Amino acid sequence: MVGIVIVSHSRKLAEGIKELALQMTIGFEGVYCAAGLEDGEIGTDPVKIMETIREAEDGDGVVVLADIGSGVMSAEAAIEMLEDEPIRVKIADAPIVEGAIAATVEAFIGRSFELVLEAAEETRNFRKIS
Amino acid sequence: MVGIVIVSHSRKLAEGIKELALQMTIGFEGVYCAAGLEDGEIGTDPVKIMETIREAEDGDGVVVLADIGSGVMSAEAAIEMLEDEPIRVKIADAPIVEGAIAATVEAFIGRSFELVLEAAEETRNFRKIS
Repeated sequence: MVGIVIVSHSRKLAEGIKELALQMTIGFEGVYCAAGLEDGEIGTDPVKIMETIREAEDGDGVVVLADIGSGVMSAEAAIEMLEDEPIRVKIADAPIVEGAIAATVEAFIGRSFELVLEAAEETRNFRKIS
Repeated sequence: MVGIVIVSHSRKLAEGIKELALQMTIGFEGVYCAAGLEDGEIGTDPVKIMETIREAEDGDGVVVLADIGSGVMSAEAAIEMLEDEPIRVKIADAPIVEGAIAATVEAFIGRSFELVLEAAEETRNFRKIS
């Protein structure tokens, strides 16, 4: 199954996204958080993200969702550190909550890496108000 | 100042968004959460959202950010309950994290209701990956 990694500056935010995504995918174990600094402070840590991507990898690749600019940069740094490892990993160009939920649902039903990534990125086109 | 209300099914998620938004607007007091059910369970409560909108109103209106479909519906129900009160309130058609951060920054620097709402909604066009 495709793994999902949620990168946020706030640990609460990442855990909240995971909580919400798992409400729709009861029993799914493929959602991981890499959020906050070691001491719980606000921030993102490339090494922690790298380790979390490794943990999330189950042979089918890992889709990363990140909150804001510096979270994306930390995730890019983490992916660079993994370049010698055979892990297929990409950051979704998507809003973090909406993208993580869509990706988790697709991963849960066993979709491929491409489809999980695509589902996350399609949420950029979501309208909430009709 | 324009008030910001974050509506989420997950209390952790809303608190995480508030935590992150306030990192960029130290000392700002205009961000409120209406998230989870009374017992902390996952869900949204229109009455709680209505009360939180009232609390957030400071004379300049309130912009609401909501997570997913049923959160938007609960926020719409809350706004309907307020229709006899002179509160200018709208749900931003925006991703919850990105929209809440942009709206909070604009509210913090004293922008009008229209500009705060617009800043939130413009985040639909954000790209995270260049």
